[in-house]
Amino acid sequence: MIVVLSKEATKEQLAHVVESVEAKGLKSHIIYGTDRTVVAAVGDKRDVDKGALENLPGVEKIVPILSPYKVASHEVKKENTVIRMGKDDPGFGSDTLSVIAGPCSIEDRSQMLDVAHACKECGARALRGGAFKPRTSPYSFQGLGEKGLQILAEAREATGLPIVTEVLTTADVPLVSSYADVLQIGARNMQNYMLLEAAGRQPKPVLLKRGMSATMEEFLLAAEYVINAGNKNVILCERGIRTFEEYCRNTQAISIVPAIHRVSHLPIIVDPTHGTGHAYMVESMSLAAAAIGADGLIIEVHPDPEHALTDAAQQINPEQFKKLMARLSRVAQAVDKNL
Amino acid sequence: MIVVLSKEATKEQLAHVVESVEAKGLKSHIIYGTDRTVVAAVGDKRDVDKGALENLPGVEKIVPILSPYKVASHEVKKENTVIRMGKDDPGFGSDTLSVIAGPCSIEDRSQMLDVAHACKECGARALRGGAFKPRTSPYSFQGLGEKGLQILAEAREATGLPIVTEVLTTADVPLVSSYADVLQIGARNMQNYMLLEAAGRQPKPVLLKRGMSATMEEFLLAAEYVINAGNKNVILCERGIRTFEEYCRNTQAISIVPAIHRVSHLPIIVDPTHGTGHAYMVESMSLAAAAIGADGLIIEVHPDPEHALTDAAQQINPEQFKKLMARLSRVAQAVDKNL
Amino acid sequence: MIVVLSKEATKEQLAHVVESVEAKGLKSHIIYGTDRTVVAAVGDKRDVDKGALENLPGVEKIVPILSPYKVASHEVKKENTVIRMGKDDPGFGSDTLSVIAGPCSIEDRSQMLDVAHACKECGARALRGGAFKPRTSPYSFQGLGEKGLQILAEAREATGLPIVTEVLTTADVPLVSSYADVLQIGARNMQNYMLLEAAGRQPKPVLLKRGMSATMEEFLLAAEYVINAGNKNVILCERGIRTFEEYCRNTQAISIVPAIHRVSHLPIIVDPTHGTGHAYMVESMSLAAAAIGADGLIIEVHPDPEHALTDAAQQINPEQFKKLMARLSRVAQAVDKNL
Amino acid sequence: MIVVLSKEATKEQLAHVVESVEAKGLKSHIIYGTDRTVVAAVGDKRDVDKGALENLPGVEKIVPILSPYKVASHEVKKENTVIRMGKDDPGFGSDTLSVIAGPCSIEDRSQMLDVAHACKECGARALRGGAFKPRTSPYSFQGLGEKGLQILAEAREATGLPIVTEVLTTADVPLVSSYADVLQIGARNMQNYMLLEAAGRQPKPVLLKRGMSATMEEFLLAAEYVINAGNKNVILCERGIRTFEEYCRNTQAISIVPAIHRVSHLPIIVDPTHGTGHAYMVESMSLAAAAIGADGLIIEVHPDPEHALTDAAQQINPEQFKKLMARLSRVAQAVDKNL
Repeated sequence: MIVVLSKEATKEQLAHVVESVEAKGLKSHIIYGTDRTVVAAVGDKRDVDKGALENLPGVEKIVPILSPYKVASHEVKKENTVIRMGKDDPGFGSDTLSVIAGPCSIEDRSQMLDVAHACKECGARALRGGAFKPRTSPYSFQGLGEKGLQILAEAREATGLPIVTEVLTTADVPLVSSYADVLQIGARNMQNYMLLEAAGRQPKPVLLKRGMSATMEEFLLAAEYVINAGNKNVILCERGIRTFEEYCRNTQAISIVPAIHRVSHLPIIVDPTHGTGHAYMVESMSLAAAAIGADGLIIEVHPDPEHALTDAAQQINPEQFKKLMARLSRVAQAVDKNL
Repeated sequence: MIVVLSKEATKEQLAHVVESVEAKGLKSHIIYGTDRTVVAAVGDKRDVDKGALENLPGVEKIVPILSPYKVASHEVKKENTVIRMGKDDPGFGSDTLSVIAGPCSIEDRSQMLDVAHACKECGARALRGGAFKPRTSPYSFQGLGEKGLQILAEAREATGLPIVTEVLTTADVPLVSSYADVLQIGARNMQNYMLLEAAGRQPKPVLLKRGMSATMEEFLLAAEYVINAGNKNVILCERGIRTFEEYCRNTQAISIVPAIHRVSHLPIIVDPTHGTGHAYMVESMSLAAAAIGADGLIIEVHPDPEHALTDAAQQINPEQFKKLMARLSRVAQAVDKNL
Repeated sequence: MIVVLSKEATKEQLAHVVESVEAKGLKSHIIYGTDRTVVAAVGDKRDVDKGALENLPGVEKIVPILSPYKVASHEVKKENTVIRMGKDDPGFGSDTLSVIAGPCSIEDRSQMLDVAHACKECGARALRGGAFKPRTSPYSFQGLGEKGLQILAEAREATGLPIVTEVLTTADVPLVSSYADVLQIGARNMQNYMLLEAAGRQPKPVLLKRGMSATMEEFLLAAEYVINAGNKNVILCERGIRTFEEYCRNTQAISIVPAIHRVSHLPIIVDPTHGTGHAYMVESMSLAAAAIGADGLIIEVHPDPEHALTDAAQQINPEQFKKLMARLSRVAQAVDKNL
Repeated sequence: MIVVLSKEATKEQLAHVVESVEAKGLKSHIIYGTDRTVVAAVGDKRDVDKGALENLPGVEKIVPILSPYKVASHEVKKENTVIRMGKDDPGFGSDTLSVIAGPCSIEDRSQMLDVAHACKECGARALRGGAFKPRTSPYSFQGLGEKGLQILAEAREATGLPIVTEVLTTADVPLVSSYADVLQIGARNMQNYMLLEAAGRQPKPVLLKRGMSATMEEFLLAAEYVINAGNKNVILCERGIRTFEEYCRNTQAISIVPAIHRVSHLPIIVDPTHGTGHAYMVESMSLAAAAIGADGLIIEVHPDPEHALTDAAQQINPEQFKKLMARLSRVAQAVDKNL
C-alpha cells in the first residue's frame, strides 16, 4: 500500500502517517519525490482497511498494491483448477469446452424431459433448470420449488447428465444440494455472503454468477467466501453487466475471460442467454465466448420459447441449439478445444 | 403493452400475434402505420412476461406501457406514507427532515454510547450501527453480531433514540427485529427476495437501500416484495450507484428523490456517506439532499474515524456532524422543512 | 410514437394531445385501456421531437416506435454494403475478414516502414498509423502531422497496402483525404457533426469509431450524418465503451456486431486494442470478434511497444501479430470466412 | 509513479525496469515487500506515458501518483479563479450564485426577446441561446446560425445581460467570439482538442461542459487545453453523465462540485436542464446544486416549451423559472451565497 501525502503535508503529519502505518504491523518506507512525499507500507496485510489511512490529516490518497483476493489467485495455486460435474465429465478447466443447457424454469415434467433429451442429443454435458426463481417482480412466476428439483432429478436419471440448479437462500442449501450436482448462485446473490458461506459448507461444486455491477475483484472475493468456507470447486460465470447500452439486456463483458485466466486458477464460463438477453444473439455470442477461451457455456434451451413462463425473449429452441452446437464445435476446434 | 411488428411481417404473423395477445387475456387493437403495424395489447396484466411476445416471428420489439410496480405507486395510494420510527417521531414523509446517525459498525460499548450521546445532542432522530456487516472481503471485520445488538439497545435506553440496524439473512430476521426499531436491508441484498419477504412478515419499518445498479423500477419492485408480504412501512434509501466515476466511491444519484416522489407514496432518504465514499463530501451532499427534497438522511458518525474498523475513509466525527447539522438546519428551513 | 396519458388525465388534456399530434402532421388513434389511455401517433415523421409532446399536461411519457435512423438501416437497403479500401480489396462486408494493422502513431520513417512490411507479411490488408493524435492530455505527444502522412504514403508505396488514418478537424479533411485511402473518425469525435459532414463530402471511405458512451442509435445516426452529406461508404468500428470495469481500459461491447448486422447494411469491425487496453488481451479478443461475425479488425502493431510514444501498454509486436493472425485464420475458417 | 512487479519477476527484469525508469529521466527507488517488489519512479514528469512501463516483462501494473492535470489545479494556484461575464458581474467563483438562463435554441426574434426580458426580471445574470445546435439526429433542427447570434446580441442590447452561446467548430470561433460574452463548448466536444485550443486563443471566457462519460481528470485536462492555449477563464459545467438509469435522461453527478473545489481553482456550475432531462426535476435539482456549493447554474427557459423546436421535454417556462428563482434565493442564502 502506498500512502500519498498532499503537497502541503507537514512533518508532523508525515510522522503521524508513519506511526499509523507501523501501528498496523506494516513497515514504512518514506520516498521524497519532487512533488509529493509518499510512504510505502510493506507487509502481507491484505485485510488492512485502507480507508483508515485515507482519513489521516495530510493524506491525499491511498494506493493499494496487492490485490485483495488470495486463495483464488494464481499466486497461491499455479495450476488451473479442473472442476468435474460428474465422474465422466472432463471438467471445466480442462481442454473440453463443456456446455450446460436447459430451460430457464422447470415448468412441468414433460417440458423438462423433452428438452433434456434434446440437449443431450446435441452434445450438452449437463442440464440446467430453475426450481427456485429469483424474479425482479413479485408478480412473476416463482418456480416449482422442490417439485421442480424432483423433475430435474428425473431428467438426470433419464439422460445420465448431471444437473445444475440455483439456490436462493441459506435455508434451502441442504435441500438443493441433496438433488443437484452443481449449485448455482445467481447474479443478484453474488454478494449474499451468508449464502456463499452456506454453499461453501456443502460438497457440490458451486457455479457463481457475476453480479450485474461487480468488478473482477469483487467477483473473486465472492468466490473466496465459498472457498474459505471449505469448498474449492467454484466455477465462475460471466453473465453480463449493466451499462447504458440499449440494444441488449446486459452488456456481455467477455474480456473478463482472459483477465480471470491471467490472475486466477478458477475456471470461467459464459452465459450468453442472460449476457445478451435476446435469442437472436445467443449463437454468435456462444462462438465468441469459445474463441476467447471460456471454459464452458451455460445456455437456456426451451422446447417452446414462445410459451415459456420466464425469459421467453432469450431462450432458444432445440433446433436452434442443435445448429449452435454444430457451429460451436468448429470454433472450439479452431482454438484447440473439444466440445 | 405495444407489440411492434417488423416491416416485413406477414399477415399470418400478425394474426398469430393477435392470437397470442388474446390468449394472455388481453384485448388487441391493431394500428396500421405508414412504416409499421403495431398491436396494442390492452388489459391490467402487469405480470405478463413481455418476452413471450418478443420472440414471436415477425415481432420487432415490445414496448411496455404500464410500470411494473403497483402497490408502491401513487396510482394505488395518493397520499404520502408517513413512517415513524417511534412514538415521538414526526416520521419520514412528514414536514420534518429526520437524520439517522451513528457508526458504520458497533465496535464496543463505550464507542457506541459515546457517539450515541453526541448524535443525540446534535439533533439526530435515530441511531444507526452495524452488528452484522456485509463485507466485500471475507478477510474484513464482520461485526459483533448479537452482542452488537445488545450494545445498540443500551444506546437506545441511554438516549431515548430509536435504533436502525441491518439484517443480512432470513434466519436473523426475528433476532434483529426483536432489538431494532427499523430493519435495514442493504444495497447488496436489495434483490434478495427471501430476505425482503421475511422483512415483510415482521412488524418494524424497513429501510431498503437501493442496489448499486438498480433502476427505479427494480427498486420499487423490491419494496413491493416487502409490502406484499404484509409490511407497508418501507423507507427507500438512495446510497449511490456504480458508474465510471473515479473521484467518488459511488455516484450519488439524487435525482431519484423527485422521481420517486412523483410516482410513489413511499418516503425516500439519502445516504451521503456511502453515496460519496469520502468524509469531505458528506456535509455538502447532505445539504444537497435536503434541498432536493429528501425525507431524511442516514449519516455515519464515528468518535474516531481514523481508527474505525470499517469505512474509515467516509465516516465523520461528532464535531463535523455538529457543524453539518447546523448548516443542514438552515437549508431545511429554506425548503420549508424542520430538522 | 405512442403518447401515454397519466391516469388522471382529463378529457380536455386528451383532446389537446390529439390536437398537438395532428398539428405535427401525424394521424392519431386513441386506445382506451383499463389503466391508461394512449394515443398512437401514426406517420413517417422520424424528425418530430418527441419531447414536445412529453411536456403536455396530462402526458406521462412518450414511447417511440420507429428507430430514428433511416438510411443506414436494412429497411432502406436490404443487401449489405461492401466497402473496398482499394481495387484488390475484397472489402468489409464480404466473406473476407480484413485486418487493418499498424502503429498507434507514426513516429518516424524507419519505424513505419519496418512495421508496414511486417504487417503485410502477416496478412494485413491495410495499414494504419496516426499522424494527428487526439490526446487526453495536452502534455502528450500529438503526432507528426503532414510529415506523418507522407511517411504513411511511402509505406503504401512500399507494400501496396491501402492506408487508414485519423482526421481530427474539418480543416484537415482535404489534406488527410488527399493522402489516405480510408479516413478514420475517432471515438471522441463521433458526435462532432461538422467533421462528420466534412468527411461525408470527400470521396474516401470513412471508418467511424463508436463513441465511448454512444448507444447503437447514436452510432447509426452519426453514420447517417456522413451518408447524408454524400458518402455512402461508412465502416462502423466498435472500440470499447466506458463502464465501471477496472481490469480493462474499456469494456469491449461485441454484442453490437450481431445487433448492427440485424438492423443495418453497414459493415462493422472491431478494435481489440482500444477495446481492451491491454496487449495481453488483444489476441483472444480478436478471435472473439471473428467468431461473433465482425467484418474486420483494426489492430495496433508496433515494432517495439515498450518504446512506443503512445499507447505503449496495448500495442503488440510483429511476432505477436504473426501468431495472432495464424490463430485468427483458423477461427475465421470455422465461421466460413477468409482472412 | 509506482511500478509493481509480478511475484515471479526475475532480477534481470527488475534491472530492466530500473533502467527504463531512469532512461525517462526519473529516479528509481526499489522497495522489497513481503509479496511484491515495487519500483518508485520519482520526478516531475507528468507526461511520461505510463503504458510504456506497463508492457515491460515482469511488470504487473503501474500506479500513477501525481494527477495528470497541472495548471487547473490548486497546487499551481491556491486562490479561486473568479470569472466575470461582464463588468457588472460579480463573477463565477465569487460569493454570488449566478444564473444563466434562456432557451435551448434561438428560434426567432420575438421568442428570444420575450424570454430575455422575463429571465432578466427573475434575476438571471446572463442569457443563453443556441445558434449552432449539435443534434444527435441529422434530421433535427440545426439552429439559425449567424442570424441567431444577431438576435442574441439584440437581446443583450435590450436587457443589458451578457450572452452565452455554443460554438461547434474551430472555423466558427472568430464569428461566435465576436458576438458572445462567453463561448460555450458542449459535452460532445469536450475532447475536441482543436476546438479547445481555438477557444483558448480568443479572449472571451469559455464555459466547458463535461463530456457524458468524462472522468474528473479528463474534464480538467480538457480545461488545460484551453488554458495552455492562452485563456485562463474556464468555467466548468457538470451537465449529467451517462449511466444505466432510466428515469432521467442523464445522471446528474453533483458530487463533482465539492471534488472540483478540492483540487482545482476553477469555478464549476451545474446544468440541471440537461443533467436531468425532465422539466419537472429542474427546480429541485437547481436547489440541490446551490446547496452543494455550485458557483452558478445554467437553465433552459422557453416562453412556450410545448412548441419548442429543441429539448421540449426539459425546458421550463418563465413562470416556472420565477418560482424557481424565488426558492433558489432562499437556499443560496442558507449556504451564505447571494443570488
